[in-house]
Amino acid sequence: MKGKSVKEEEEGGRKGSVSIEELQKKMADFAKERDWDQFHTPRNLLLALVGEVGELSEIFQWKGEVPRGLPDWEEKEKQHLGEELSDVLLYLVRLSDICGIDLGNAALRKLELNAIKYPVSLCKGSSKKLTLLSKNTTTTTTSSSEKGVVNNDGE
Amino acid sequence: MKGKSVKEEEEGGRKGSVSIEELQKKMADFAKERDWDQFHTPRNLLLALVGEVGELSEIFQWKGEVPRGLPDWEEKEKQHLGEELSDVLLYLVRLSDICGIDLGNAALRKLELNAIKYPVSLCKGSSKKLTLLSKNTTTTTTSSSEKGVVNNDGE
Amino acid sequence: MKGKSVKEEEEGGRKGSVSIEELQKKMADFAKERDWDQFHTPRNLLLALVGEVGELSEIFQWKGEVPRGLPDWEEKEKQHLGEELSDVLLYLVRLSDICGIDLGNAALRKLELNAIKYPVSLCKGSSKKLTLLSKNTTTTTTSSSEKGVVNNDGE
Amino acid sequence: MKGKSVKEEEEGGRKGSVSIEELQKKMADFAKERDWDQFHTPRNLLLALVGEVGELSEIFQWKGEVPRGLPDWEEKEKQHLGEELSDVLLYLVRLSDICGIDLGNAALRKLELNAIKYPVSLCKGSSKKLTLLSKNTTTTTTSSSEKGVVNNDGE
Repeated sequence: MKGKSVKEEEEGGRKGSVSIEELQKKMADFAKERDWDQFHTPRNLLLALVGEVGELSEIFQWKGEVPRGLPDWEEKEKQHLGEELSDVLLYLVRLSDICGIDLGNAALRKLELNAIKYPVSLCKGSSKKLTLLSKNTTTTTTSSSEKGVVNNDGE
Repeated sequence: MKGKSVKEEEEGGRKGSVSIEELQKKMADFAKERDWDQFHTPRNLLLALVGEVGELSEIFQWKGEVPRGLPDWEEKEKQHLGEELSDVLLYLVRLSDICGIDLGNAALRKLELNAIKYPVSLCKGSSKKLTLLSKNTTTTTTSSSEKGVVNNDGE
Repeated sequence: MKGKSVKEEEEGGRKGSVSIEELQKKMADFAKERDWDQFHTPRNLLLALVGEVGELSEIFQWKGEVPRGLPDWEEKEKQHLGEELSDVLLYLVRLSDICGIDLGNAALRKLELNAIKYPVSLCKGSSKKLTLLSKNTTTTTTSSSEKGVVNNDGE
Repeated sequence: MKGKSVKEEEEGGRKGSVSIEELQKKMADFAKERDWDQFHTPRNLLLALVGEVGELSEIFQWKGEVPRGLPDWEEKEKQHLGEELSDVLLYLVRLSDICGIDLGNAALRKLELNAIKYPVSLCKGSSKKLTLLSKNTTTTTTSSSEKGVVNNDGE
């Protein structure tokens, strides 16, 4: 947005290296400065997150299927989308912090679990196999949480 | 989780510096290796995100109010929570990437917009004033997206 | 499902006349018999509803656009869809009851409000006009709640 | 709201007997009159539903726990709540219709399934037992859809 701000210059190397931890800290400072910690309870934040996911969905709701990269969207609309995606992220980061969860490392671990669960040799290109695979593993204890990053077409 | 893995050692300095960009790249690699790009359309990913938010909500659904830090939760339950928070994050990051949105920088910008919109002097500790403030600004064009990180109690 | 049950016979004329009130009463009885009223607080039920909306979304998540009537879906999948839609409905009805809202009549009133807000003469077939109309009315006080049943394509 | 309208008089006995079918028909007429059927595809309606659930959540987001009957809420706020609950219901009813699902009867069947799954003798008052019960049945095929109307505290 309109070139690098002084602030960006000072903090340097911002491009492509925004960390979960940084956002978490900024959200914590933001709340503390305004005495809003009292409102940031786990379930309050969760409902706020759901509210933002609703606003995100509204952007896509009457569009039918939308191609990658959103080639036909106006710049203003993309900006709006970026804001809603950000709102979801910021509440997610804040909720994790308030719950004492290290979100960044939890996400890395989840990616490793997914890699083990969905081996390339079995999953490649076939949603059919994935469904089967998914069904077979559904009997394990943590099935519902493991469905995360996966194509389980027939679920 | 149980000490640094070899992989963590190699990549180094992981603690507290997991970036949005890194997660985005890992998700892109994960999908490409499995030929899953075909399934990762914007609205497919959005619905997958909604599904994960649902699983996140299920964790909190029968608990009544929950104190910060989740002092009474078992370790296993916290681990489950970390996985669901991660699933939401991973799909959010992937959705942003597929839409061509630089999520990390969009979030930083959103934080700056929020700081301007909710000046400390007006907002401090009072949800009443916030509501009023929120109402007054609702007539501007981007009202719905600006509700993001804010206590609008009476909305 | 497999012919009318005795219970259906007794209650008679069930087909096409299931009322909101009836579902509300059945849910209340169900909870009371199991001493579950203690868990059915407004926010607990709301989060349970969000959880069910998540499961509903999972059914559609990897499918791309889906034609009306779901012509290619297997019977088993449609049954699953019916169950998830029902879960959302049952929690919605229960939440309304617990909040003291007469959901059936509120819905009828909302339909009347929508008819006034979106006159046929202005809205017919044109999503462009609707967008404009929607934008113009966004400045009124209850904008966010009035967006309900409407095609606001460019929102 | 402002006494019985003429329309209410004509249709008579409205109080407490609003049926799913009636709402479905009204929604269908509303869309047809405005040529909006073209926008009412399954996934469009699903995302609109998610949007409304988001607005519903916003009402509760900063409130902390809320007692039954909402004794401290202003009339205006309750009215707003009724509108958002209605929006969710109307889109749910419309989505079901477009998918060819008989929502009213599906809900009655789901209630019967739940009664079988959660027998009073086992479930009464104990969230512990419920959790266990829920865990035991999780290995059956339709586990995820069966979690519907149930207290699975430790899930």
